[in-house]
Amino acid sequence: MREDIYKEWLHNRKMYKDSLSADQLFGRILKGDQLALSSAITLIESQADLDRAEASKLVSLCTPFSGKSIRIGITGVPGVGKSTFIEAIGCQLIDSGKRVAVLSIDPSSEKTHGSILGDKTRMEQLASLNNAFIRPTASGSTLGGVARHTRETILVCEAAGYDVILIETVGVGQSETMVHAMVDFFLLLMLSGAGDELQGIKRGIMEMADAIVITKSDGENLTKAKEARQIYQRALHYFPATSSAWIPEVLNYSYQDVVSIQSIISLIEKFQKHQIISGYFEINRQKQAVYWMREALLTLFDRSLAKLDEIKKIDIENKVFIGELSPFEAADILYKLILKNTEDGK
Amino acid sequence: MREDIYKEWLHNRKMYKDSLSADQLFGRILKGDQLALSSAITLIESQADLDRAEASKLVSLCTPFSGKSIRIGITGVPGVGKSTFIEAIGCQLIDSGKRVAVLSIDPSSEKTHGSILGDKTRMEQLASLNNAFIRPTASGSTLGGVARHTRETILVCEAAGYDVILIETVGVGQSETMVHAMVDFFLLLMLSGAGDELQGIKRGIMEMADAIVITKSDGENLTKAKEARQIYQRALHYFPATSSAWIPEVLNYSYQDVVSIQSIISLIEKFQKHQIISGYFEINRQKQAVYWMREALLTLFDRSLAKLDEIKKIDIENKVFIGELSPFEAADILYKLILKNTEDGK
Repeated sequence: MREDIYKEWLHNRKMYKDSLSADQLFGRILKGDQLALSSAITLIESQADLDRAEASKLVSLCTPFSGKSIRIGITGVPGVGKSTFIEAIGCQLIDSGKRVAVLSIDPSSEKTHGSILGDKTRMEQLASLNNAFIRPTASGSTLGGVARHTRETILVCEAAGYDVILIETVGVGQSETMVHAMVDFFLLLMLSGAGDELQGIKRGIMEMADAIVITKSDGENLTKAKEARQIYQRALHYFPATSSAWIPEVLNYSYQDVVSIQSIISLIEKFQKHQIISGYFEINRQKQAVYWMREALLTLFDRSLAKLDEIKKIDIENKVFIGELSPFEAADILYKLILKNTEDGK
Repeated sequence: MREDIYKEWLHNRKMYKDSLSADQLFGRILKGDQLALSSAITLIESQADLDRAEASKLVSLCTPFSGKSIRIGITGVPGVGKSTFIEAIGCQLIDSGKRVAVLSIDPSSEKTHGSILGDKTRMEQLASLNNAFIRPTASGSTLGGVARHTRETILVCEAAGYDVILIETVGVGQSETMVHAMVDFFLLLMLSGAGDELQGIKRGIMEMADAIVITKSDGENLTKAKEARQIYQRALHYFPATSSAWIPEVLNYSYQDVVSIQSIISLIEKFQKHQIISGYFEINRQKQAVYWMREALLTLFDRSLAKLDEIKKIDIENKVFIGELSPFEAADILYKLILKNTEDGK
């Protein structure tokens, strides 16, 4: 049965993608057509050169209509309850008249249709709502590629009229840093637990958080969860203020407790107001644009570096290790090789 | 009077630098000649092409004799008592038979002979000892340049037989990250103070520290300083362990209290033992070498980027800001310009 849904969905998507031009897709996206939006994202994620050109055109068309949402990053270790949380907050936001898009990033995952069905299944209630758009896990061979797809997908979703973009990431590798650099608000979900409060949380993640939410703050867990809140709130005091002077808050939450979900939404609204008044909402987005331009440049540079002869590179690195070459001399040699390669048209 | 000392010192140094070749300097450095060492560092810091070639040769000669010291980074906000601390720990180390070199990094400072006298004056006791070598503030137009000079200076000091290299930095800009990436042990000095424990400490510094030392833990300040120690020790618990599984410690210190200084030295010895046994002493240095190779490559790349036409660059950035170009499209354009420039031999 699930397989049927998937096949139908895949068929429709392919039909759209193959038969509609960027202009046609764009017209439908502006009207909020979810199937067109889905096809557009497939186009954006495509590696084919022809698709890339069409995707580029589509993104350019959408850009003037983008930027009006709040982009929210959500991270936390597996098992913390991300799907339940997104479902809860997503439904509540839609209840209050918003349109919500959910994107997932998991660079470690393989591109299987399992994850597509998975996302729809694990957020069944949210997925059934008209004003929700849930997009399967974005994957790709490189983090740089995933970043580009996701940034472009955000723009297209915004053009399709989504007010809230939730970008979920699993705490693996560099994906949180990436998501942090493309959202307005970054939320860290954490479990309470005596003694192991920080288990599994990577260095630096807490510093990026605009808010921490202690999940599963209910039943027998409630006392522990309230304690955890205080511990984290105290811990956050040790991090100097962000440049916008926003002070991160810690909240308790349970999917059974509507009030706790509403508190989180209120906090996000308070944050957005704070950022807009201080001017940091725009400043942050401009900084992010510059950040991504630089990252993209470095990706291109890395690609040139990767094209160098592997044996030559290892030989140079080894000489650095044994102290025959300083790291700076080695860099001089490698840079000359890159430029020479480019001249040779490699 | 001070001016006389400076003039004489400058004269001798210039005489050495001008009259001795890299080979001659190298021979004297191996014997521990401080004037030769000083001239060598001046040579390393020189921007002149002829000097660069000679400096490169000298560093290559010294490298096989380098690496045997422990490199200690020391940071803290102005007023925390860095000079007093370095003087105290330096004298104690020399007392126990070590030879100590002190390098200062302050990329924000201008190259004035004021800082040279300043360093000697503010560590008068240490400066008077035969087994101490105090090097004036390293400065330069770029952080990359300062990094390279400092890395090379460390090697030359090691070849001159210094067992302990203390690298002091003031908490400005990116200098701590730079120093952290060239030392074995990174020490953060902090003041105690009710409520303002974290004043002036930048995000991320505490995470880099292998130890925190609460300065001025004496007299009326002692109770507060002991409290601060507990607060920081607790705060450090919120940072996940380092890759070598070393757990950072917090110590109280007063320059009047020899025992407190000895405790810090013992902690550093304990750390060194821990790192050597776990293999991380070498691993860390190799990682640092790779880090600096990459940084140097990026510096070269940035230099190519800087050579691009400024007006063209600003135009592209503005297009990104107003959403006419995506950061990724902008990067594509810029990268093509860099390669084109290189082909044109610019």
